[in-house]
Amino acid sequence: MLFSPVVEHLLESLRVLPGVGPKSAQRMALHLLERDRAGGERLVQALHEALERVGYCQRCRNLTEHEVCSLCEDARRESTSLCVVESPADLMAIEEAGGYRGRYFVLHGHLSPLDGIGPDALGLDLLEQEVRTHRYQEIVLATNPTVEGEATAHYIAEQLRPLGVTFSRLAYGVPLGGELEYVDGGTLSRAFSGRQPFQS
Amino acid sequence: MLFSPVVEHLLESLRVLPGVGPKSAQRMALHLLERDRAGGERLVQALHEALERVGYCQRCRNLTEHEVCSLCEDARRESTSLCVVESPADLMAIEEAGGYRGRYFVLHGHLSPLDGIGPDALGLDLLEQEVRTHRYQEIVLATNPTVEGEATAHYIAEQLRPLGVTFSRLAYGVPLGGELEYVDGGTLSRAFSGRQPFQS
Repeated sequence: MLFSPVVEHLLESLRVLPGVGPKSAQRMALHLLERDRAGGERLVQALHEALERVGYCQRCRNLTEHEVCSLCEDARRESTSLCVVESPADLMAIEEAGGYRGRYFVLHGHLSPLDGIGPDALGLDLLEQEVRTHRYQEIVLATNPTVEGEATAHYIAEQLRPLGVTFSRLAYGVPLGGELEYVDGGTLSRAFSGRQPFQS
Repeated sequence: MLFSPVVEHLLESLRVLPGVGPKSAQRMALHLLERDRAGGERLVQALHEALERVGYCQRCRNLTEHEVCSLCEDARRESTSLCVVESPADLMAIEEAGGYRGRYFVLHGHLSPLDGIGPDALGLDLLEQEVRTHRYQEIVLATNPTVEGEATAHYIAEQLRPLGVTFSRLAYGVPLGGELEYVDGGTLSRAFSGRQPFQS
């Protein structure tokens, strides 16, 4: 033990952060203790408050400290379409990309029977209730383009089909700015089969 | 504002950590809120406790939650030499490298008159008192190999010279495992002028 137990405990605790190994933890701890104690205090307060107060929106399961999140409260959002995502990070990515102005529903994961994650854990009853109540014209199933994400999208479509809504899924294809030679075969063949008329 | 103010405040506060930009802050916040709230609580506690309790050792100015740090308390450390470093991180690096078994003194910076950092801020009176009291045979001036580190080393040697101790400085040279072609000219010329008889 090089340092005091209190500092060692801090080093260890910082490693709960994703991407933080022993060296970064040391750099962070020393930075806070040596150069920015006020910033450290703010972090303690902010993290404590977030852990204490932030829960799920009762309507869309986005993270919020209120009963209903600001996106659900926002009357200017289009109420005709609902976008179903696996995580708040996905929601943020879509919002940052811009272009979508409808509502969201956050699953917080995907179906994974082996890990005991079933329809209940994903709030699918709440989703069904939301779709029943608000008469969306379209539901964008924006789960991840993975085997589990696909399976989850299929399961949801199956469950909600009786409600008579239209489902869509994000387009597969080559990413913008990428080089074809580095695109994987699966993506490339999906991009081929989904090719579009060229507007010149 | 995508998220709740509380989450936004957490994102902002995480950015006091060195090397954490907006994207990492988001990943960290969502990880803690979505997957490891218990880890987040532990981090709050550990950081709060460290900020509250950790100060400087009264003897060597290393970080500690006690009056005197565990290195100073350790009677097995050699009491003949004292290693002066700029920061606790330098102390940790030397300890991890192994080989040195003496005592330390931490300056918490280097002389920088323009930033108002003078001898007082570096605890040089405490250092002088330490050297007077403990009769070290050697003082290793392990400040950084930079202009400021050199200047600080010279200043300290000048100040303590009347006490009749021997000073040393870490060897300059090419780093182990490096390739000569990538070593900068200054380092290379110091390595040349400091060349040693080859023991084969």
